[in-house]
Amino acid sequence: MQTPRRVRDLGVTVGTLPPGPLNAITDVPGVRVGQTTISTGDLNTGVTAIVPDGYADGLPAAVAVGNGYGKLVGSSQVDELGVIETPVLLTGTLSVFRVADALLTWLLDRDPKATSLNPVVGETNDGHLSDIRRRPITPEHVHAALDSASTDLPAEGCVGAGTGTEALGFKAGIGTASRTLDSGTIGVLVQANFSGTLTVLGTPIPAQPVPAQSDPAQPVDGDGNSCMIVVATDLPLDARQLGRVARRAVFAMGRVGSDFGPGSGDYAIAFTTNRRSAFVDRQLRGPFQATTESVEEALLNSLTMATTTTGFRGRTAHAVPHDLIRLR
Amino acid sequence: MQTPRRVRDLGVTVGTLPPGPLNAITDVPGVRVGQTTISTGDLNTGVTAIVPDGYADGLPAAVAVGNGYGKLVGSSQVDELGVIETPVLLTGTLSVFRVADALLTWLLDRDPKATSLNPVVGETNDGHLSDIRRRPITPEHVHAALDSASTDLPAEGCVGAGTGTEALGFKAGIGTASRTLDSGTIGVLVQANFSGTLTVLGTPIPAQPVPAQSDPAQPVDGDGNSCMIVVATDLPLDARQLGRVARRAVFAMGRVGSDFGPGSGDYAIAFTTNRRSAFVDRQLRGPFQATTESVEEALLNSLTMATTTTGFRGRTAHAVPHDLIRLR
Amino acid sequence: MQTPRRVRDLGVTVGTLPPGPLNAITDVPGVRVGQTTISTGDLNTGVTAIVPDGYADGLPAAVAVGNGYGKLVGSSQVDELGVIETPVLLTGTLSVFRVADALLTWLLDRDPKATSLNPVVGETNDGHLSDIRRRPITPEHVHAALDSASTDLPAEGCVGAGTGTEALGFKAGIGTASRTLDSGTIGVLVQANFSGTLTVLGTPIPAQPVPAQSDPAQPVDGDGNSCMIVVATDLPLDARQLGRVARRAVFAMGRVGSDFGPGSGDYAIAFTTNRRSAFVDRQLRGPFQATTESVEEALLNSLTMATTTTGFRGRTAHAVPHDLIRLR
Amino acid sequence: MQTPRRVRDLGVTVGTLPPGPLNAITDVPGVRVGQTTISTGDLNTGVTAIVPDGYADGLPAAVAVGNGYGKLVGSSQVDELGVIETPVLLTGTLSVFRVADALLTWLLDRDPKATSLNPVVGETNDGHLSDIRRRPITPEHVHAALDSASTDLPAEGCVGAGTGTEALGFKAGIGTASRTLDSGTIGVLVQANFSGTLTVLGTPIPAQPVPAQSDPAQPVDGDGNSCMIVVATDLPLDARQLGRVARRAVFAMGRVGSDFGPGSGDYAIAFTTNRRSAFVDRQLRGPFQATTESVEEALLNSLTMATTTTGFRGRTAHAVPHDLIRLR
Repeated sequence: MQTPRRVRDLGVTVGTLPPGPLNAITDVPGVRVGQTTISTGDLNTGVTAIVPDGYADGLPAAVAVGNGYGKLVGSSQVDELGVIETPVLLTGTLSVFRVADALLTWLLDRDPKATSLNPVVGETNDGHLSDIRRRPITPEHVHAALDSASTDLPAEGCVGAGTGTEALGFKAGIGTASRTLDSGTIGVLVQANFSGTLTVLGTPIPAQPVPAQSDPAQPVDGDGNSCMIVVATDLPLDARQLGRVARRAVFAMGRVGSDFGPGSGDYAIAFTTNRRSAFVDRQLRGPFQATTESVEEALLNSLTMATTTTGFRGRTAHAVPHDLIRLR
Repeated sequence: MQTPRRVRDLGVTVGTLPPGPLNAITDVPGVRVGQTTISTGDLNTGVTAIVPDGYADGLPAAVAVGNGYGKLVGSSQVDELGVIETPVLLTGTLSVFRVADALLTWLLDRDPKATSLNPVVGETNDGHLSDIRRRPITPEHVHAALDSASTDLPAEGCVGAGTGTEALGFKAGIGTASRTLDSGTIGVLVQANFSGTLTVLGTPIPAQPVPAQSDPAQPVDGDGNSCMIVVATDLPLDARQLGRVARRAVFAMGRVGSDFGPGSGDYAIAFTTNRRSAFVDRQLRGPFQATTESVEEALLNSLTMATTTTGFRGRTAHAVPHDLIRLR
Repeated sequence: MQTPRRVRDLGVTVGTLPPGPLNAITDVPGVRVGQTTISTGDLNTGVTAIVPDGYADGLPAAVAVGNGYGKLVGSSQVDELGVIETPVLLTGTLSVFRVADALLTWLLDRDPKATSLNPVVGETNDGHLSDIRRRPITPEHVHAALDSASTDLPAEGCVGAGTGTEALGFKAGIGTASRTLDSGTIGVLVQANFSGTLTVLGTPIPAQPVPAQSDPAQPVDGDGNSCMIVVATDLPLDARQLGRVARRAVFAMGRVGSDFGPGSGDYAIAFTTNRRSAFVDRQLRGPFQATTESVEEALLNSLTMATTTTGFRGRTAHAVPHDLIRLR
Repeated sequence: MQTPRRVRDLGVTVGTLPPGPLNAITDVPGVRVGQTTISTGDLNTGVTAIVPDGYADGLPAAVAVGNGYGKLVGSSQVDELGVIETPVLLTGTLSVFRVADALLTWLLDRDPKATSLNPVVGETNDGHLSDIRRRPITPEHVHAALDSASTDLPAEGCVGAGTGTEALGFKAGIGTASRTLDSGTIGVLVQANFSGTLTVLGTPIPAQPVPAQSDPAQPVDGDGNSCMIVVATDLPLDARQLGRVARRAVFAMGRVGSDFGPGSGDYAIAFTTNRRSAFVDRQLRGPFQATTESVEEALLNSLTMATTTTGFRGRTAHAVPHDLIRLR
């Protein structure tokens, strides 16, 4: 079995902007990530928590919906108020409400006066490799992810909310990347689980065709497939501008070969730790480029860091052979 | 204590269109309502379930956001696909994810193949009269509401998701009403919990001013207040047209005196049991009027059917004196 | 014929907040209004220009769509960039593009380097009283409105873009009002042209039924009816918050009896002359109330300041008798 | 000078679905295209008209906004009513209102009873090669485009609304393509004028860097750049589904190297000539793929069919050398 490698270590350089020190969302000052992985037999799922300092006071934020076939919790209030007021969590589809409720528990414990909170929890469907109907995520799993959040390089591939996901015909998972600008940093974390043809710097790398499966519980089009993208920054963007950034995050899915299928829940949520709202729209070219490059690289990392996984009902998803990537 | 009365029985006739036989959302063929009430000491909350036949095959639907300060579960997928695929549930704010998860349980039990579902659950903040931080709703409460759903006249006032809500300075709760057109029926159910000055057929009925309270856990502006409106019909409207209907439902809140405060989560969800999509937009004046009248009357019923309630921390919300209404 | 009077001078006091010195949109510092009236035989139409200082540098702005059956020019760019970069003009439906083009001419003359501009021009359909198909507005009319803009109390009633409009069964037109808060001023100008039943402080004042007309060119439902609302302020709101304000402006139409008919183009555009973006959402209750009261009073002024008008094909629209209003 | 060639004739095959007989938007039955080209010295601009049969009765339609820095006329009413009721026209930015008004003239001549019409006119900024401030489009130009509309293969490259546009560092213009499905046809026409790095089947083809220009009237970022995409079909899609299709059209810009810059007005409008609304969302994978492939190929055609052009102030935009394309 090949050793997981980040795509940059395979010789693939995405774009022209410099990454941050970790090439990760945690390069954005004050942003921490924690994850809980469940990988036992029929279960391959988990929780990924993005925890920005200052969330409790509200951080400017916006959601972009690429394709709304998903159960993103919290989006309408983010639209209205232009802030997130909690960490952002990712998980598997049918566990999303258990995770949101466990996040509430964690928040209520920390704020004895709170009587209204708007948790933001995204999901993709990991039901091909995980027995999704069991909804195995417990409050302890969620709290462990939150409590372990750190500014380290987050684990990638088959970890946390990416434990059971697949993308572009290969095993995928969590990926992260960042880009630095003179004025600040853009960091991205993705949960990749969508259809299309893997494309690395423009070259398609088709997965081997899989024999048709008649398994009735297998996720099929319209019933699985999705991508959650979290964009963090310390640039002084307001919610409207973060919405423009978030849309570029969705657009960037095309760069690695997403076919934007009808059954995909493709969402990006962008937030800033900087409440100053002092950016001019004409200067957004840099943040847009940084976002595009970060999403492309994070998505590739979600694949090259993943490992071949056998899960629910003996189904196997294969990691993309690094040799195919290195040839780029 | 006055006997709860529907507003029409107090001599108030809203609008000119005829109500259905029950003057309720259950006048729409195939629409059932079930409710679970929790009213014990510090708890005044519950669940209201609107269960339309055929939900599992998808019913055309749309959400209108009047003010998005709320945690409506499921809205982005309704926007994308234009359908609801589950019953619509209402509850108190911090219980919304427990209710959504319990709805999943109920649905998964009924569909052994389902691996993706989009529950629609709305909420308003009943934390003034109920110890909301306890999140007391259990799966059993939710399942009882779903299982007891019937085509009878739904209970109104302090029941189900309206057990602990207040509106316009008075105790409020659940209300329902309907209007019939030549081509079908519009039925509405509301969970009323918003600020403003009660207005009955144009005449303001101000509540007595309440002495300032310093209770830190009391819901205040931006931390409570909301209105969930469910509009059901059997007219052959498509999702776009139902969105137009849903916006009129929000507009109609003004007719009873809503001040559309900044901290309110005002949402309407409209669905049809009729998938034919055979309506012409020029004919929408009738459905719009029926919606407006039904919402106005349902909101008034939510007040006149409510009873004075003492709850969390000994707080009391007073029912509107019917004498003030009868004078209209 | 009765003398046009503002509704406040008829003894009707809307709301509780104090108006500005003029009770007009021009109470907002730096906001000027100019109008051109065409009232000759078959033509009853015109142009109303709202000209804020500093527009060329971009002023934070947002559009709310109550019912999008209208031809508002410029809205998608306002949505994207959150600014207006030109004066806001109002006119009759079929002249909207001539007015937008004439506004371009005026702007290009003032900015020799401009190669892209986003004029904002709203319209309502005055085709009942004016021969709308003639599109009589010339560049000179537009430039006269712009060049004459002043900080005086704007003319109301049958003037400018309101020369030929009708609302709630009566002759209507342009109306304006304002409210002051400790932190600044909200000013509103409306072009009223919508259906429903006139309601003054809650009391309906139905218009006399008009004998059915078979005139094929008469605007009918879905082919006329609309309301344009312009909200100006000097509060430091950002575009997202101005969107929240603009929605309240639409909601306020219900207070005077709008039925929000399906053929109405009901839009509000809100802008601020203050680019500081320093407002907290929790403080929006004041601006919302000020907006609601200003829109309600401006709409009433658009009626009580209008005069009975006979126009295209001899059609007559009657001013609302002040006696009916005074009795409130 | 190289002979303009369609990209398929250069050996580039986009995607896997079969094109229609003309590989053009006019493969959709009932869709005609007419164009007027102005190419004289300082002027390089024009009009492109897409004229579907049955527009006057309303055709289901939707707009997707990729980046709303543009002046698309008519979008809010399309959003509300889900139909276009006129031909769709494209032109240069500052002429958009003259074109809309001329379209009105043409329509009013054909419908003696019309008193309200919602023209749909898109634009991109051709001010680099054309003296855009002169707004040279006359009603005659517009009417000639409309009157000459035919079902032939539309001219591509430097023609109509694409006469003066540039994309991805090269001269661009109008392009078209189509794909056939068992159930119908998707046809696309584009007006390409956006920034990024030309990418052909995944391989970047960077344009030669242009020496910095200090010309103050040159369109710069935020002041030019845009892409209008028109998608036509005869599939029985409703407006909501057409909105999903239109979003894929925007996403497809990434396939040829769009950087989705902040100053771009990227819009897609999708309509169907088939009012039956009988499509199931689960079947949209085919229409989405057909749209993606058609947009990619139409954009490439807009470049390979364009010719090197010298225009306003002696500025030159170079056609992409076909040799660079053929090497793919």
